[in-house]
Amino acid sequence: MHTIRSFREHDWPGLWDLLRPVFAAGDTYPYSPTISEDEARREWIDTKRAAYVAVDSSERVLGSYYIKDNQPTLGAHVCNCGYAVSEAARGQGLGTRMCEHSQAEARRLGYRCMQYNLVVATNTVAIKTWENQGFAITGTLPGAFRHPTLGYVDALIMYKQLET
Amino acid sequence: MHTIRSFREHDWPGLWDLLRPVFAAGDTYPYSPTISEDEARREWIDTKRAAYVAVDSSERVLGSYYIKDNQPTLGAHVCNCGYAVSEAARGQGLGTRMCEHSQAEARRLGYRCMQYNLVVATNTVAIKTWENQGFAITGTLPGAFRHPTLGYVDALIMYKQLET
Repeated sequence: MHTIRSFREHDWPGLWDLLRPVFAAGDTYPYSPTISEDEARREWIDTKRAAYVAVDSSERVLGSYYIKDNQPTLGAHVCNCGYAVSEAARGQGLGTRMCEHSQAEARRLGYRCMQYNLVVATNTVAIKTWENQGFAITGTLPGAFRHPTLGYVDALIMYKQLET
Repeated sequence: MHTIRSFREHDWPGLWDLLRPVFAAGDTYPYSPTISEDEARREWIDTKRAAYVAVDSSERVLGSYYIKDNQPTLGAHVCNCGYAVSEAARGQGLGTRMCEHSQAEARRLGYRCMQYNLVVATNTVAIKTWENQGFAITGTLPGAFRHPTLGYVDALIMYKQLET
């Protein structure tokens, strides 16, 4: 059974073990595949409003997401999130659970909408997950992502209004 | 006659005179309408890759734009620009000239695409200008901008591939 809770300082080593291969694969996030630990920490934790981890009963980090304002003041009612699941924990619905959790947190923090800015078009598992969670593909950015093996591929913008 | 050239340190006072009412109006950029001079400087100059000004023969700042990577490494071939024209210089095609200039600069800097992330849907003059310059509306973000008089309005994502 997984618990999703706020990131704590002692989670970082396990979280870095999770993030490193995700970024190294270079097919979902735009960060350099050889990103340093410090830079990853800055990108995932320090420059974000809040970060969360999904842990098992041994406190092993199996997933994580962050939440932040997508724009300054007059666009700050729209949040942006990024999610990552460890290779070992994939296919168990953890992305879905973290997405649900993030929407509840976003509402609690006062956000009205959630926006994903760069969903790589080849990342069909993520796209299906977000669509099942009520996100719409509101935009397509031709060639906006440089994939390590496929070259320039499209990226999608996905969006959901959290309040009606 | 206007000259468009790289921002120089002595341009800042005139540029701040230009930007301040643009941000104060609160209908085109998401920055706080009461943004401080330091914060404006940080947003328009210090955190960007390059900034430019359009000046008249007396070196008066009539317009400005910045250019930056829109995403890190694997999305860094897409740039983002922001433009502002002084109230006195509007309706003279300066937005168009700066947009043309920015595309040439973007190509020179090695960018393949240009993306505008938050074009306020009520800003019809800008939308028409960018469309005339070959930008497509690739996405609509419902209620993504908090307009000072109209409340939550849509924002558009506009995009152009600079190379074919």
